[in-house]
Amino acid sequence: MARYFDEFAVGDAFESAAYELTLDESLAFATAYDPQPFHLDARAAAGSVFRELVASGWHTAAITMRLIVESAVLKQTGVVGTGIDELRWLAPVKPGDTLRVRGEIVEKMPWPGSKSRGKLRVRVVTLNAAGVEVMTQIANLIVPIRPA
Amino acid sequence: MARYFDEFAVGDAFESAAYELTLDESLAFATAYDPQPFHLDARAAAGSVFRELVASGWHTAAITMRLIVESAVLKQTGVVGTGIDELRWLAPVKPGDTLRVRGEIVEKMPWPGSKSRGKLRVRVVTLNAAGVEVMTQIANLIVPIRPA
Repeated sequence: MARYFDEFAVGDAFESAAYELTLDESLAFATAYDPQPFHLDARAAAGSVFRELVASGWHTAAITMRLIVESAVLKQTGVVGTGIDELRWLAPVKPGDTLRVRGEIVEKMPWPGSKSRGKLRVRVVTLNAAGVEVMTQIANLIVPIRPA
Repeated sequence: MARYFDEFAVGDAFESAAYELTLDESLAFATAYDPQPFHLDARAAAGSVFRELVASGWHTAAITMRLIVESAVLKQTGVVGTGIDELRWLAPVKPGDTLRVRGEIVEKMPWPGSKSRGKLRVRVVTLNAAGVEVMTQIANLIVPIRPA
């Protein structure tokens, strides 16, 4: 069932399911969207700043979106983002890593100019299986207000 | 040929090639990474805030990365990002749209703790064929300093 703006509160938190980023998927994403040697070729990666093959940071971001969309708290609401602040890639993601996401609403405010929608700022942390934070961001989401 | 940190200056600008975001690719990306009705189903999209089928904002971001990686100015240097600031989705991207990217170096600074790399902040604008800015961001990139 859809949740409306009024039903969200600062401090509300959620945790997603897990997602395994396979080597095949990593290579396919990087080939399409981030075709750099350290994402595509193990030998080239060994000589790079990463020292080994790593996934594209934008792939981590895309998987994070998938995990947010599927998380129960937002599933039926529709995750319409206006933007992202302070996105940071903190640690490399390696093919074979399993990712999950934690989110927490950190701000709730009107959406200027709209009476039908409000804005939530959600701090989103993407973690690997060892619990290391690999990516963090603040997502700005627009959420419908319950019709009067 | 690789460009080193010293060869980049504030004000340097580049423009990418163009990229057509087809309906098939839009549906495939959204199915994998942003499976929401307004990205996947024309009828559902008609009743959404977007009023028509739109591409995932993360798909626009991924295509933008591809266009940056392939742009001559950064091609051989390696685009290693530490993070993104102020990413904004300003206008919907529709399947069939053709995107291109403009970038401009807006800051150049040391990378704390490193003598072998420096940091560039690049303002990146993604435009559709009509010249409308659909996405903007500030990318933080780490670039090698020429070996002494």
